[in-house]
Amino acid sequence: MRLRPAIASLVAALALAGCATTPPEALRGTGDLGVVIERAAGRVQIVEHSTNSSLATVPGLGDLSHAHVTFSRDGRFAYVFGRDGGLTKVDLLARRIDKRIIQAGNSIGGSISQDGRLIVAQNYEPGGIKAFDADTLELLSEVPAEYAPGKFSKVVGLADVSGQRFVYALFEAGEIWVTDFTNPRRPTTTRYPAGKQPYDGLVTPDGRYFLAGLFGEDGISLLDLWQPERGATKILAGYGRGEQKLPVFKMPHLRGWSLAGGQAWLPAIGRHEVLVADARSWQETARVAVKGQPVFVMARPDGRQVWVNFAFPDNEWVQVIDTVEKRVVHTFSPGKAVLHMEFEPRGEEVWLSSRDSNRVSVVNTATFATRSELPADAPSGIFFTARGQRIGF
Amino acid sequence: MRLRPAIASLVAALALAGCATTPPEALRGTGDLGVVIERAAGRVQIVEHSTNSSLATVPGLGDLSHAHVTFSRDGRFAYVFGRDGGLTKVDLLARRIDKRIIQAGNSIGGSISQDGRLIVAQNYEPGGIKAFDADTLELLSEVPAEYAPGKFSKVVGLADVSGQRFVYALFEAGEIWVTDFTNPRRPTTTRYPAGKQPYDGLVTPDGRYFLAGLFGEDGISLLDLWQPERGATKILAGYGRGEQKLPVFKMPHLRGWSLAGGQAWLPAIGRHEVLVADARSWQETARVAVKGQPVFVMARPDGRQVWVNFAFPDNEWVQVIDTVEKRVVHTFSPGKAVLHMEFEPRGEEVWLSSRDSNRVSVVNTATFATRSELPADAPSGIFFTARGQRIGF
Repeated sequence: MRLRPAIASLVAALALAGCATTPPEALRGTGDLGVVIERAAGRVQIVEHSTNSSLATVPGLGDLSHAHVTFSRDGRFAYVFGRDGGLTKVDLLARRIDKRIIQAGNSIGGSISQDGRLIVAQNYEPGGIKAFDADTLELLSEVPAEYAPGKFSKVVGLADVSGQRFVYALFEAGEIWVTDFTNPRRPTTTRYPAGKQPYDGLVTPDGRYFLAGLFGEDGISLLDLWQPERGATKILAGYGRGEQKLPVFKMPHLRGWSLAGGQAWLPAIGRHEVLVADARSWQETARVAVKGQPVFVMARPDGRQVWVNFAFPDNEWVQVIDTVEKRVVHTFSPGKAVLHMEFEPRGEEVWLSSRDSNRVSVVNTATFATRSELPADAPSGIFFTARGQRIGF
Repeated sequence: MRLRPAIASLVAALALAGCATTPPEALRGTGDLGVVIERAAGRVQIVEHSTNSSLATVPGLGDLSHAHVTFSRDGRFAYVFGRDGGLTKVDLLARRIDKRIIQAGNSIGGSISQDGRLIVAQNYEPGGIKAFDADTLELLSEVPAEYAPGKFSKVVGLADVSGQRFVYALFEAGEIWVTDFTNPRRPTTTRYPAGKQPYDGLVTPDGRYFLAGLFGEDGISLLDLWQPERGATKILAGYGRGEQKLPVFKMPHLRGWSLAGGQAWLPAIGRHEVLVADARSWQETARVAVKGQPVFVMARPDGRQVWVNFAFPDNEWVQVIDTVEKRVVHTFSPGKAVLHMEFEPRGEEVWLSSRDSNRVSVVNTATFATRSELPADAPSGIFFTARGQRIGF
């Protein structure tokens, strides 16, 4: 069969048009991708950090006023947890929402299992955790945070650890729970007393220790996940608001904690200080004076620097601490209301979101020069796909 | 304009056919990709570790009898360094060679700069390092290992560290060199005396310390890259072949060294032992008896386990050490002549190559069950794209 020229041209044009529905980035790696939360607009920007550009905007993600993101093991999908209980799977290559569900009334985040097959959300209301199939977002099981008959707790500090386990703290219960999803439809949970009102938690980079900050008393609750039968112990008894109950403008994020050079770097609560503690003995070894009440205290991936942002009214500032000299070596303002920082995986640059300046700045960590500025609508969290290759994110 | 149904069908068929020229994996993430070296055939297999399958075979890579692979920051490209001085850039998504050059007469590997823009090869003959544009493979500069007028040394142990620097050891010169490629066409090099005949090296996961094993004397040469002006110091003076000069069937790979739980796990030289040293004081703290002369001693990413393979005649065996109990907890044979191991990024499975059984085995690290076996032609090295997100690979 032969086509007349006009129809042949049409065929060719349609063939091209058909291909053009394949996104422009069909053939591209995902190791340098990430998302920036535009909190007020309920959107995410898809960005890349090889040349520092924005690739696309994906709307329709609901209330992102407190959002967290975790990534699939292949780096293609971002799972965005919204404040309103929305769980949205964003396809970073097709640049669109792949699936979206409302999984709870009020959520503060979630994580992905070691094997990448389960997404687990941590919820305030109703309090508990839920496990979803990472591919379909089908609900597989849930663990209500019912710590006494009819009493439910908010869940905080959820982190994935090895063996398909998730560890998290229960604010009202004063407990740390470890849930094993080896059988994803029949999870098993072990409970450990943890102190008064744990308000956030993190795992160390090796996934061994879970640390929960306490709101109701000073000190930190530590559980050794390699020897959990020993139970949680209290460390850094002087860490907290103290007996005078200092005014605290914003409780620091424990996820910001850093381990660098065998030392843990912690945001002091209510004080203009960063605390340094030996990561073996958990004894305090130093304090570094900083410009305000620290919120995030984050180590550059090599641990040579620790970057600090602050609560209001000092939240336009960022300081950099040299971890060998244990002193501030750089102070600058990338913009107004600096909410979050994310290092590129090997640490040569860091991305900072300035909510009230509507921009994201990319700063060279060796020279402190601003390399790029990207416009963004009230940006908050920044998350790169390299998190999908690590434990505890 | 309306098309008759037959033509409309044809248009649709052609549109699909046009799109089908896009490779089958056009839309896929790269975070779970890797390559397996088929050493005798000069080929690599492209594999993925989400479902443990082989995706494609790419031939034409020359002599791969001692091959090393490093990855682009976006995870799309593998740079394969062959024994014959070949440097091949493989496109993991298009599944073909993107570029290939012969850059030296005899090479043992290379690495990628912190920002991902430079590929640096380490060469035996002619001894030295060369820097190439990661995109085009254009030669940008070279640093001959001429340690005295007219005298050239083999280069070993090359590792990338922060600040566009590369650190490496010179066997005949007995020196460690640090070359800064901030200006890639005008690198600057600093030299440090390091002891007799350094034969391999590695950097710690944070990129701070470079350690070089010594062939000509016992002990290890250590350079603190955060304070290089202090020079290299000798640690673990008892580490080596000893005064009796034990027979050594294969010098262990230092890249296999592991830091886990604040301890360094090292292959003893000529002895059926794995040594444990405190990673702060560098004092030996324990020895674990194993089945043969260890070659690779590799920590699972969380550090809870250390996996060991062996030199001939024990090279069909693999042992697993529990790092808390400091004892062997599992011994098995995945096949004959086990040459290499690579953990999936979060450690739930490990891939092992058995050269003389022509297969790669994927083993669950919690249960030790074999999850998959993939046929491969005399496989040696296995490398996953997650290396591109880390320092020192």
